[in-house]
This record gives sequence, C-alpha cells and structure tokens, in this order.
Amino acid sequence: MQTPHVTTRIQRADTDSIARLGRYTAATIHEAQGRRGAVSSSIKPIDRDMTFVGSAFTVVCAPRDNVMLQVAIHFAQPGDVLIVAAGELRDAGLFGDVLGNAAKAKGIAAVVTDSGVRDTQELRALGLPVFSGSVSIRGTVKETLGRINQPVVFGGELICPGDVIKGDADGVVVVRRAEVDEVSELSRARDEHEAELIDLYKAGGTTIDLCGLHTVLRDKGITTDLDDEDPDQGLGVPA
Amino acid sequence: MQTPHVTTRIQRADTDSIARLGRYTAATIHEAQGRRGAVSSSIKPIDRDMTFVGSAFTVVCAPRDNVMLQVAIHFAQPGDVLIVAAGELRDAGLFGDVLGNAAKAKGIAAVVTDSGVRDTQELRALGLPVFSGSVSIRGTVKETLGRINQPVVFGGELICPGDVIKGDADGVVVVRRAEVDEVSELSRARDEHEAELIDLYKAGGTTIDLCGLHTVLRDKGITTDLDDEDPDQGLGVPA
Amino acid sequence: MQTPHVTTRIQRADTDSIARLGRYTAATIHEAQGRRGAVSSSIKPIDRDMTFVGSAFTVVCAPRDNVMLQVAIHFAQPGDVLIVAAGELRDAGLFGDVLGNAAKAKGIAAVVTDSGVRDTQELRALGLPVFSGSVSIRGTVKETLGRINQPVVFGGELICPGDVIKGDADGVVVVRRAEVDEVSELSRARDEHEAELIDLYKAGGTTIDLCGLHTVLRDKGITTDLDDEDPDQGLGVPA
Amino acid sequence: MQTPHVTTRIQRADTDSIARLGRYTAATIHEAQGRRGAVSSSIKPIDRDMTFVGSAFTVVCAPRDNVMLQVAIHFAQPGDVLIVAAGELRDAGLFGDVLGNAAKAKGIAAVVTDSGVRDTQELRALGLPVFSGSVSIRGTVKETLGRINQPVVFGGELICPGDVIKGDADGVVVVRRAEVDEVSELSRARDEHEAELIDLYKAGGTTIDLCGLHTVLRDKGITTDLDDEDPDQGLGVPA
Amino acid sequence: MQTPHVTTRIQRADTDSIARLGRYTAATIHEAQGRRGAVSSSIKPIDRDMTFVGSAFTVVCAPRDNVMLQVAIHFAQPGDVLIVAAGELRDAGLFGDVLGNAAKAKGIAAVVTDSGVRDTQELRALGLPVFSGSVSIRGTVKETLGRINQPVVFGGELICPGDVIKGDADGVVVVRRAEVDEVSELSRARDEHEAELIDLYKAGGTTIDLCGLHTVLRDKGITTDLDDEDPDQGLGVPA
Amino acid sequence: MQTPHVTTRIQRADTDSIARLGRYTAATIHEAQGRRGAVSSSIKPIDRDMTFVGSAFTVVCAPRDNVMLQVAIHFAQPGDVLIVAAGELRDAGLFGDVLGNAAKAKGIAAVVTDSGVRDTQELRALGLPVFSGSVSIRGTVKETLGRINQPVVFGGELICPGDVIKGDADGVVVVRRAEVDEVSELSRARDEHEAELIDLYKAGGTTIDLCGLHTVLRDKGITTDLDDEDPDQGLGVPA
Repeated sequence: MQTPHVTTRIQRADTDSIARLGRYTAATIHEAQGRRGAVSSSIKPIDRDMTFVGSAFTVVCAPRDNVMLQVAIHFAQPGDVLIVAAGELRDAGLFGDVLGNAAKAKGIAAVVTDSGVRDTQELRALGLPVFSGSVSIRGTVKETLGRINQPVVFGGELICPGDVIKGDADGVVVVRRAEVDEVSELSRARDEHEAELIDLYKAGGTTIDLCGLHTVLRDKGITTDLDDEDPDQGLGVPA
Repeated sequence: MQTPHVTTRIQRADTDSIARLGRYTAATIHEAQGRRGAVSSSIKPIDRDMTFVGSAFTVVCAPRDNVMLQVAIHFAQPGDVLIVAAGELRDAGLFGDVLGNAAKAKGIAAVVTDSGVRDTQELRALGLPVFSGSVSIRGTVKETLGRINQPVVFGGELICPGDVIKGDADGVVVVRRAEVDEVSELSRARDEHEAELIDLYKAGGTTIDLCGLHTVLRDKGITTDLDDEDPDQGLGVPA
Repeated sequence: MQTPHVTTRIQRADTDSIARLGRYTAATIHEAQGRRGAVSSSIKPIDRDMTFVGSAFTVVCAPRDNVMLQVAIHFAQPGDVLIVAAGELRDAGLFGDVLGNAAKAKGIAAVVTDSGVRDTQELRALGLPVFSGSVSIRGTVKETLGRINQPVVFGGELICPGDVIKGDADGVVVVRRAEVDEVSELSRARDEHEAELIDLYKAGGTTIDLCGLHTVLRDKGITTDLDDEDPDQGLGVPA
Repeated sequence: MQTPHVTTRIQRADTDSIARLGRYTAATIHEAQGRRGAVSSSIKPIDRDMTFVGSAFTVVCAPRDNVMLQVAIHFAQPGDVLIVAAGELRDAGLFGDVLGNAAKAKGIAAVVTDSGVRDTQELRALGLPVFSGSVSIRGTVKETLGRINQPVVFGGELICPGDVIKGDADGVVVVRRAEVDEVSELSRARDEHEAELIDLYKAGGTTIDLCGLHTVLRDKGITTDLDDEDPDQGLGVPA
Repeated sequence: MQTPHVTTRIQRADTDSIARLGRYTAATIHEAQGRRGAVSSSIKPIDRDMTFVGSAFTVVCAPRDNVMLQVAIHFAQPGDVLIVAAGELRDAGLFGDVLGNAAKAKGIAAVVTDSGVRDTQELRALGLPVFSGSVSIRGTVKETLGRINQPVVFGGELICPGDVIKGDADGVVVVRRAEVDEVSELSRARDEHEAELIDLYKAGGTTIDLCGLHTVLRDKGITTDLDDEDPDQGLGVPA
Repeated sequence: MQTPHVTTRIQRADTDSIARLGRYTAATIHEAQGRRGAVSSSIKPIDRDMTFVGSAFTVVCAPRDNVMLQVAIHFAQPGDVLIVAAGELRDAGLFGDVLGNAAKAKGIAAVVTDSGVRDTQELRALGLPVFSGSVSIRGTVKETLGRINQPVVFGGELICPGDVIKGDADGVVVVRRAEVDEVSELSRARDEHEAELIDLYKAGGTTIDLCGLHTVLRDKGITTDLDDEDPDQGLGVPA
C-alpha cells in the first residue's frame, strides 16, 4: 500500500474543450459551476499577467524535495498543468529557471505549487506561467519518492489527474474533466449576464433593483432611517 | 437590540477639507495626528499606484456574504469610501467587476475590505481604488444582514461613519471628521519639516545631528568603540 | 552585560570580492555554498527589480522603535547593507523616505529589515534597495537602545557584521566574509553548469537523463504503469 | 496632541451590577447583548479554570515594554481588570509573578493582554486570573510612555474605561458600562431559555423542531433524499 | 447544480469493525495505512483525554453560520462523527452546550470542526468529544444552506460520508470505509512491532541497530568524527 | 562543503554547573543574562509540568524526515537535550513513544523541536520532557541526511553544541557553555531581588515606588489628571 507509484497515462479533456474553458476567468468558472473548485487564495501567480488553462498532472513531493517534480516533467504532455503538492512549506524553492526551461521545452502549460519557487525574474522572461504559495531561494533535495497522478488535495480542493485547471491573477480553479463543456457553457451565460448587468449599472441601475434586494431585505425585516419619512426611498418599497 | 439597521444619512466633512487632506500620504497623516488611525498593514491596494481620500461609509458583512455591500452601494454618495468589515476571512471574494462598475457609476471613491476581492485586472482597468486583505475567487452568498453606518472596528482601528479615510501604496489611515482641517495643517507642517530634513541630508547632514541624538544617547548611557580614543567621533560629544 | 554597545569599526570583505559575488543571484549563491545562508522568505524587496550586494552592518531595534537605525546610518560606510532586526513586528514602519535620503546620501547599499517600512513609492523613486517583512504606515518611537554590529539572528539565519549579503527578487542570502571568493567561484561554476543544462533542455534533453534519475529511482524501487509493457519507456532502464 | 496622558479616575459600574453580570459566561453575555463585544479568540486564560469579571482599566504599552503596566497597577482600584494593549506581539512576556503579586495585593480582578505573559505556574498558584495572547519568557524594557484609560481597540473590540469585562475558559467579552444591568437581565433570560432547550433535548426533542427549522429550510428550498418517498421524515413537513 | 442537498442515508462500516479500529491511536492508524488520512494538526480536542471513533457524517456550513449543523444533528445516527467544515474561520463558536446536549442525546460519537466551539467547560462535563480549530465565544447566524453528506475536503484531507474517523490527543485520521478491517489489522501489526521495539530499547538496543541505519547511512556517504580513529564506533561498520 | 557530517564528541558544561542553573526558571535565566537566549515562544512543552536542563545536542532534520534524530539518539549522552531543527513545519510528527523510549533509555534529558511530535499521552506517561512547535500525527520518512552538532539557528536563537538549555512551562532559553556559572549567580541574585520585591508588594508597596518610576516618568513628561489638584498623589512628586 505504501510504495509510491508513477502513473504516466491519464485521460485528458479534448483540446478544444480546454481552450474554450480557458476563455473565462477563474472567478467566473468557479461561480458558474456552483461556487466549487476554488483553490486556496494563498496560491498566486508570480506575475499578475500570467494566465493558463490545461490538464492537471498531479505530483506529490516531500517538503523541500523536488525529485518527483523532475520525474513529472519527464512524463507530462504538452498542455499539462503540473500540480505540485509539497506540504505547504513556504520556505522552499523547488522550481526555478533550469526546470523552467525543461518544462517550457516540453510544452507544459503551467506549474502550480503550494510551496515556493525561485528565479522568478528568469521565469517571467521565459514566459512560463508559474503559480506558487511563496517565492523562496531555499534549495531542495532529491531523496524522497511520492505519487504521480493520483487524486490529491491541493489548496483545500480535490484535484484528479486530467481535471482542467484555469489560473489567472485572481487565483486557480479546478473543473472536473467530465464537466468541462457544461461549465464552459455556464461560464459563457454568466459572462453575458454580467456584461448586461455592467451595462445597466453604467446606465444608472441600482444594486437594490438589479440584485433583486427589495424582497430579500423586506422579508428579513431590515429597517432604515428612511422608512418612516420617505417610504419611496427606503428598502421596504420597490422604486 | 439585534435587528440590523441601515443608516443612510451621515454627516460628512466638507469636500474642500477632504481634498486638502488628500494631498498628504497615509503615513504622513498618521504621524501628523499623533501616530493614530493606522489601519492594519494587512489591508493593501490591489495596485500600488492606487490612492484615494473620502468619507467613511461603513458596512458590516457576514463572512463570505456580500448582500450588505450591495445595499451600501445603493445608499452611498459620490466621494464615499466603503469600509467593508467582513470577518477578516481571506478566502472570499466579495467584490468584483460587476459591483465595481456599480460603485464607479455611483462615484464611490474607493472600496476597502478586510476580506478578499476578485476581478482585479478588470478593477484596475476600471480605475476604482480597491484595498483588501486578499485576492480570492471564492464566491459569496447574499443571506445575512448586517449594520450600515454604525461605528466599526476595522483593521484594528475604530472607524465612524463620516470619518475621512486616506489610502495609498503604504496603507490606510482614518481621521476623525472633526479633526480633518487640523490634521491637514499638521500634515502640511510635517511635510515641510521632512522636506527640509531631506535637503539637509542631501547636503551631508547626519542622523545624529538632525535627529538630535546626542543628548538622548548620552542620557541613556550608550557606549561605542570610539569613546575612548576619539571622543569627537563618539556619541558622547556634540560635533 | 546588559548595556547596549555600538561597534562602529568592522572588518569588511574587499570591494572587488563583494562586486564579484554580486554577479550571482541570491538563489545561486545559496545553492553554491551548500544550501546555506537563506534568510526567511518573508523578507522581500518593495520592488521586484531591486537588487543589492554589500557588507552587513547589523542593528537591533526594539519593536516599533527606530532610534538605533538612526545611529546605524550615522556610522555605516558606503556599500554597507543595514540589517535591521526589530522583533519581526509587521505593523510598524521604521524606515521611510527621510531616513531613505539619509541612507542614500551616505552611499548605503541597501536597508533590510524583518519589520515594516513606508513611503515605498518615494523609496522606489529614490532608487535605494529596501527589503522588508511588510509595508506599514505605523510610526515608531525613539526610546530604546540596542546593539550595533554584534552577530544577530535575522530571518532565521546568523548574520555577523561584515558578512556579505546579496538580495534580489527571490530573497536574501548571507555569505561569511572569509568565504566570499570561494563562494563566488562556486557560484560561477554553478551558473555555467546550469546554462549548459538549459541548453540541453532546449535541445530536447529530459529530466530523467539530465538529473541522473535512472539510478536513483531504480534503487528506491519506484514503479510506473510503463514498466511491464514498454520497459524502454519506464524508469528502470536508461535511454 | 501627542503627549501620553494618565487618567486615573474613571466611572465604574456599581459592584452589585458587576457581580450580577459575572454569573453568566462570556459566551452567554455576548449572545445576550446581540452578539456584540467578543474579544479576539486568540486571547485566552493561562488556565482554563480561570474566570473573572470587573471594570476595564485600559493601558497602552509599546510592544515589548511594560512601563505603563506598572503605572496602571499603581492607579487601578480593587475589582479592576487591566486591559493591556501591547501591539499583539506574541514574543514578549510583559507580566509575571512580581507584578502579579503587586496586582494581587491591590485587589486587581484580572490582567488581560494581547501580548504575552510568563511565570505562568507561579501566576496559577497566586490565583490571579491572567488572559493573554501567548506565553513568552522574553523580557521587556521600561522606556516608552502610553495612554492610560482612554478608549482602546483591543482584540478587535472597542473597550472604554469602566466597561465591564467578563472572561472565562471560552474567551473575553466587553459590556458597555451603561448596559450592564440590561445585559444581565438578557443573559438570565437566555440562560433560562437554554436550560429549557437542554431539558427538551434530553427528553428527545429534535433540532429541526426546537430550532424552528421547518419553515426556514422549506422557504430556502432545501431538498433531501427523504422528500419523495417519506415526506413525514423530510424537512418539508412538520413532524 | 447549486441547490444544497441533504443526504440523510449513508453507508456505514459495521459497528464491530469501527470498534476494532478504535483500539488504535490516530497516529498508529495513519502510519499503518501508509501515512495517509491525517487531518490538519490545527484541529485538536478541547480536552486531551478525549478520544472517539465513528462514521463520518459530513456537513458544510457557511463561515459563522451553524444552521446546517442543526440539520445534521437531526439526521445523524448514534455513533456518527459530525465533520463540520465551516471555512476554517477561527473567530466563530458554532457549537456549544445546547447543541452539545442535543448531540449527546442522539448518541453522536463526536463533533469535529475546522472552525471554533464554545461552552468548553460544559462540553467537558457533558463527556462529548469535541475537536475544533479554536475556542471562540463569537455567535453564529442560521441563514445559509450547505451540503450534508457529500465528500468534503476537511483539514486538508478528503472525507467521504461513512468513512471511519478516529481522534485522540494527537489529532484526527480518516480511514476509507472499505479499508477499515485491513487498516485495523495493519494497525495491530504495527502496534505489536512497536511494542517489541520499545522492549528492545528498554533492554539497551540502539537506534542505529534497530532502525537499520548502518546500510542507509553508509550508502548515503555520511561521515563522522569517529570514522578515522575508531571504526567500530562509527556509522560505517555494524556493531 | 556539502556532505552532512556527524560530530559525536562535544564539550559539555560540568554536571554540577548544569544542575545549579536548572534551579532557575527559563524566564529568570533569560533576564539574568541580559535578556538573551529566549527561544521562540511557539515552542512549548506538551505538558505544562515538564521542566528540564541539559547540554544541547543539535540535529538538523529535513522537514518531515527524522532519520537524523535517530542517529542523534544513538550518539547523545545522558543529560543531553536534543535540539531538533526540522524546518518549522508544523504538520509533521517526527518523534513519538518508540523513539521516546529509546531516548529515555539513553538518559536523554529532553527532546526539543520546532516541528511536531505525537504519542503525547504516552510520552507524558513516560516522563520524558518533550517541547515542540506542534502536535501532529503525520508520519515522517527516513531519507535525507543532515548535520549533527554544528551551531544551528533554532527558534530564532543561535544554539551551539554543548550550550546549556533550560525549559519549563513558559518556554526555552539557551545559555552559552562558558557563561553557565556566571548566569547561575546572576539568576540567584535576580531571584533574591524578586523575592524581596514580592514581599514588599505583599506589604503594600506600590509599583511607582518599587520600580523607581518617579524619575523616569517625570523626565519623560507624562501628565495625569491628578497633577493639578493633588500633587502628592500624582506622578510628579515622590511619596
């Protein structure tokens, strides 16, 4: 039960589906699929302009040890997103520009870790999206084995190999592989609805009206200093 | 005692006074008013070029719930700064570009929260100053009422509705409404004094002289490796 | 045993040696000297383009008190790096643009603290590298004495006066004064080796080969889903 | 505006009112007064059997400096609770058995700080309730003045001199001086109601019935796996 | 996709299997099943003598909202362990002695939450094992629905309804329902092995011998100050 | 420069000196030697009645790896205190009752780590003082070598092999080997002075008098509400 195993072959969503999901922001996707899949907000891009979408290729590293990350880069496919769980230890830099070039050469879409990375200026120049829990120069060893491509809890969310991951300036979200197309459609609908809302706000719409708060607030019995004297301005009566 | 109440009408400082205070940095204002009013350093702008000044419009949200923020946007006036206390829960994004557009359209000066926000790239493009404890994609509900425009402890400081708030790259400071003009004057004096000091340092002044440390250090009995051999260089004797 | 003492005269590495070490990144230096000397990753530049190298001039301040920092600026020499240990209290801004100008005028190479700083926009404009545990507007007092130029634990590492410190976007590293030239040479060798590796990765090399993982993984008994059917692709056999 | 001032004379609630409030737990009082006044849960007794009630005597200390705490003990009255705000710095022990004996001899009801304390075994033996953010041996200085008996934000709550403070194993709550009797009465009512609820639960009552969840849940539209086949067991229908 | 659903009927391991697993400590079980299933060490019993074993009955609450916990108590069965995920918000007390009596009357085996609890003295007297991320008096609302008995990430581990949970002074571990008997057997074997080791240590055995370190250390090339002069005492040669 | 080395032979203070220092509390020793040597307050005993004194035997473990701790137990001498630096990773239990029995059998005085331990109930029963940064069931591996008996930064303090370490309910302090007798004498003097102070406080002494605050406060210019009307009660005039 204990020997770490490397699974190299995983099922991935098809490329078009992944690309379509990638049009939406992580926040939109999270909302669209029912407020699910948000990875911990402690994991952020090393540059806020970085964005990615791809298939999860999961790796478990011992804290301050990156040997399995090296193995993962070997077996990952173009378009994969390396999800590197390494014990949430901030003071470790388990990925830098050498492995960054290896990952870039393989066509890896992004590297995401709950530990730290380094060589951040070089990685930005390289153009590889890197998301991490910290930036640290502290070196790692290459001693302890770990699992590759088994389901892993990462940033408080369950990620299965082949799930689709989207990341941007606001954070990282996971979508189950079988739900990618449905979530893309829900995201599109949400984006359209939000665009309409924004137009309405620009045209002078109010949050009370557009968020449908009249009923909600009245039912909950909120009171305001307007209710007595000018009911048309208060919350109790629709405009 | 328990039903949340919305106070919509608050007293504000006059516009000129607010604008005058806004000329000074948050750090200067904090110092000038006697080292008071510094909001926790964990609350920062989503872009370091963002700066704002305005009247506090206070809102209490339940953690991961933004219904009262929606109500607040409805009743806030142009120039107001929304102070959104939401339990200091980092993994929640209770403000994004839809409400951002609503706030912008209302002429709200800034949104400041001890919880998280999202759509940060869009909010930057929108040009609305947003200060928060984190950036998170995690969605919120709209269920639980809270107070609007009652005094609130926010980032470790008491903020009353109508207090004037200044924020910039270094942080956020609160000034009591009745003290705005006095604090502006004190800030101006401090800025002048600091400008003089900077000129003196550029001209070769030393910290021992310009900070008046000779007496302080001698009284406290500090010793240096210079005292015996070259008293003119040590701390014990004025230059 | 208790009276704080100011040591003004310290031994420094020679200027050329310091400059030579400064060619390498903090991460490279840390690795090259045997994964030693990494200061806590919580201490970061206020601007990621900031970089410095210089001799450690160590100061111990009481939390939220910067009197000794003022003394230190007085006695520091051009090229020195002020290492300011102030109790790791984040909500304090003990260094800003006035002292920043004083430090700049003295030719100080950088200011590094485990507490907070302020006036970050002005400090960036000034071009003085500043590394800190936080940014905070909260003011400090000038009451309590502390030691100058005695060995200090800073960010989890021992720093002695005259040690050479390098900092960049990834973090801060300390090198013992007597080891600077040796570490420069080791850093150079490491950089060359990494440049070769990057070239090999760009040319299609794999992590299994270039990191020498065949033996390591086989000895540890890892298994893969490739081992049975296609041994040439698995981990057990060199390419 | 800046010179610290010591206010020695404060208004206190009468002794009987304080004692009556003290019959209720901190949690009950917090709930009874409308879920207000809960001090941060990071502040805890050094022994879970410790409990206290008394009048707030507020002190602001610089981090790692206890001179004002010494002044406060001098001016406090029997029955007072020292509220010692010291910058939330955990690694400082600003109160121990010497001052503990001074406080005990004065009849001080409790010492509550957001920083650390030491000599905890001796303080337990002394029988003085001590609540703190940490336990630390690290010594303090006596250099920097601070305010005594001005309103202070402590553990995220505003505490005014003379407010009544109750603490026990679960935490600390503040009650405004003018509301003590009202809150005592509300607490008594709540305790009675909770005792009845407990009796009903012991007799087999269910949370759905006793918490009145039928309507709440139905209105919100929750679904269960019981609804179709056995509606009497589901949430949609009262038992 | 978004309406919260309550699943009341879950599959449980049989009572004897659960009881058998309960003989082993959380640490032993975690090790025996291959170092899996350890819930975050931030979740601890309110009394170190508390211990429990039972079937996971999972509940998701909004932060600072316990309505779903009330629903869960209604539907849980004797022997169940309530796993209450509430956003890891420490400053909330969502479980106390009233619901504690309700849970006790239902025969619930334990309540485990990543948020806070209160009435800890009463809960200890009640004899109900309660494990939490904190103790807080801060009250909760009853507004927001959440899921019951769906897989949940809790303390960094995936917990499925019906999984078996063991908790004691050291922490909490989850065992998949289908693996309970196997893990019990592995735990028994591990306990026996550890008992033998302890006997050997008491009889004078050394860690080098009993942990089989001779080979490990020699292969890794460790050096000692004994190797040259007295090889029999060094690490390179078995005793 | 990189191969970890095990130093087995270290210089220790003599047994009588160590025992004499052990009479004083960690807080007293820290103060007596000039407020030096306080290890981080995050490291605490697993039972508040635990206390120890002994010679530091330092070990560096990789995070979540305890192989070097096993080696250290082998080479430690009776009376030694194992100082186990393991990256401050809380979610790891690298010491439990099996190694606890090995350490006890060797006569080791205490085990102190910045990571976690487990089997705390058994370790209490065993009577071995154990101080740690956390309690965690999470298992460790035995893969990565580390240094034994080289100076190490531990809990923010430099500890050298052979330094004398004292720990109790309040925390842990380190004393340089060469200073043990001097610090014992200073501690004795401090204890005597504190006993006198306590007697004076019990007899009605005041903090203003006994702490010599008259001069201090007057010099700093503090004001009180007593100064005008009743100067004898104020701070400005000695009693």
